[in-house]
Amino acid sequence: MFEITVDDAKFWKNCVDAIVNLIDEGVLEVTAEGITLKAMDPAQIAMVSFQVPSKAFVEYKVDSSTKVGLNFDNLAKILARSRDKEKLTMALEENKLRLEFKGDTTRSFKVPLLDLNAGPSKEPKIDFDASLKMNSSRFKDVLKDASLVSSHLVLEATKDGFFVDARGDSADLRVESEKTADMIKELSVKNDAKATFPLHFLEDIVKACPSDGEISLNLKTNMPARIQYPIGDASLTYFLAPRIEAG
Amino acid sequence: MFEITVDDAKFWKNCVDAIVNLIDEGVLEVTAEGITLKAMDPAQIAMVSFQVPSKAFVEYKVDSSTKVGLNFDNLAKILARSRDKEKLTMALEENKLRLEFKGDTTRSFKVPLLDLNAGPSKEPKIDFDASLKMNSSRFKDVLKDASLVSSHLVLEATKDGFFVDARGDSADLRVESEKTADMIKELSVKNDAKATFPLHFLEDIVKACPSDGEISLNLKTNMPARIQYPIGDASLTYFLAPRIEAG
Amino acid sequence: MFEITVDDAKFWKNCVDAIVNLIDEGVLEVTAEGITLKAMDPAQIAMVSFQVPSKAFVEYKVDSSTKVGLNFDNLAKILARSRDKEKLTMALEENKLRLEFKGDTTRSFKVPLLDLNAGPSKEPKIDFDASLKMNSSRFKDVLKDASLVSSHLVLEATKDGFFVDARGDSADLRVESEKTADMIKELSVKNDAKATFPLHFLEDIVKACPSDGEISLNLKTNMPARIQYPIGDASLTYFLAPRIEAG
Repeated sequence: MFEITVDDAKFWKNCVDAIVNLIDEGVLEVTAEGITLKAMDPAQIAMVSFQVPSKAFVEYKVDSSTKVGLNFDNLAKILARSRDKEKLTMALEENKLRLEFKGDTTRSFKVPLLDLNAGPSKEPKIDFDASLKMNSSRFKDVLKDASLVSSHLVLEATKDGFFVDARGDSADLRVESEKTADMIKELSVKNDAKATFPLHFLEDIVKACPSDGEISLNLKTNMPARIQYPIGDASLTYFLAPRIEAG
Repeated sequence: MFEITVDDAKFWKNCVDAIVNLIDEGVLEVTAEGITLKAMDPAQIAMVSFQVPSKAFVEYKVDSSTKVGLNFDNLAKILARSRDKEKLTMALEENKLRLEFKGDTTRSFKVPLLDLNAGPSKEPKIDFDASLKMNSSRFKDVLKDASLVSSHLVLEATKDGFFVDARGDSADLRVESEKTADMIKELSVKNDAKATFPLHFLEDIVKACPSDGEISLNLKTNMPARIQYPIGDASLTYFLAPRIEAG
Repeated sequence: MFEITVDDAKFWKNCVDAIVNLIDEGVLEVTAEGITLKAMDPAQIAMVSFQVPSKAFVEYKVDSSTKVGLNFDNLAKILARSRDKEKLTMALEENKLRLEFKGDTTRSFKVPLLDLNAGPSKEPKIDFDASLKMNSSRFKDVLKDASLVSSHLVLEATKDGFFVDARGDSADLRVESEKTADMIKELSVKNDAKATFPLHFLEDIVKACPSDGEISLNLKTNMPARIQYPIGDASLTYFLAPRIEAG
């Protein structure tokens, strides 16, 4: 059993949004240290690993580790009803998760628990060749540019900068960001790295990153990419499989 | 025959919006005292009673009482074209209602009259047990919360406060507003009162109430609710039938 | 071959929007003097004539006159990705048009050229009877009013003012703007002029005119109307065929 309170319900809303953009259902693991979730998207192309330490909460009572299977789609809609500066308390009650918003009035939602298999137990180990930090809204803009021309895009990092290519019937696109560009906050490259990714997944992955935030991107040629960003004290890590071109 | 002028066309727009949210067609009764309308929604679940005294208008010439059958849907679209600080003059002309907006240009819409039966002649008499005044935008928020989980909701007033319950497959909701909550402006309860109402109708009824306005709610167990609010000098009164649970 | 640079990509975006609202494909003629386009809409009811002089560009190198067939729909979507204060360079490259946006990063779109017949070579010569200049947003408002009641409207200019009529099942509309109205910036009438036009085309034609801009309108009874407005240094001229009522 547990009883966990967030000082500002919007924080928890933002965390759940970052998860629900990739998966509809998943299992939160609640332990004395904090809350984690690892899950693959239904198509098994992307993985999300979510972690938030107990210190992110104003109240955090956890008797024993608990797995909480949830419909995140439903949860996200409820959390979207958070009002400014409301406290949110989460607790298990009669095989349901109770979400109690406390402001001028008290609003309690009880959502049924789902009996789900836990997600993958660990993250893939990849010895990445390139590591970048980028301005979030600039990177989102690049994805929007690419979405005009194709459903896939090539991400490439070299010692000179970061490059995006997309090819389609209506146009071809190349975006060149030199390592000195404002968009690039950090660039560290052992070997040139280049891979092709499905655009739609990338859009879903970065959607919940605040516009003024920073996105970390790790690349290795024809290997999954790792994308990371924080939401307050929580950390979101995503892995996205590349599309390997035939031949 | 009549010729009636509103100083600010937006006022009349807001009145018609409050009517059209419930009914598509209806009969305005224009008398020396003012304009009234009583109508049932097509499903006969809700009733609207609209009243605006002649003093709400800068010019009000009515030779004889007149019934004006109108397509309110059409009228609302025309009134949505009101611009700021335009005068609106309404008059009968060749079996049409002329709406003349006078600003920098003069815009005259003529809409056909409909041959409709007048609505119900009087409001139901109910000896209500509970009477509340609520902040409009807060109450609308509660309806949005409830719409996440069900198409019906239970409204309950006791000496302690105001309570809303909704139950659905995705979640159950309970909203508790103590009588001291900011949302509750007045609460007067003779006997506890509790009834179930269709959410969609409640949403339509309160839609036209200004966000900073106050909504009056009268309840009696398993009896219709009365919902009232003013729009300027006009008053809107709605009755909404409860859903009686079997057994 | 050519290489042409706009100081602010948004300017070129606005020009292309004014063209694409009427046609999907067309041929830009690039000469030493500037860029022009003449095209009929697919239904042959409206014509657009676009002209922008070379001085509108910060860099303008044109070796020889060139015709550039383009999908304007596609081009408009790419130009909608312009960011504030980006330079845009356009050049031909391997049978494609390269659009290079230069800001913090460099974004190059290459779009295929289309093999299209050039448009009409000249504008119709009409000895108009009435000439007006109108506030753009006011005129757009009148079109919105008319769209409530009909798909066609009558435009009429006399020495007294400018009049719009529309008739439909739900309502009839008459808008009267005296020559002294704020909406009318200039009015010069040799003979009364009156014609009926398809509303949808008028809406498309004025859509790209800035809200604080001025629209010139020339009328002659039952003849095409000429509508003109500038976008920066560029000029847009449209001709719209009237609907001749039978009988």
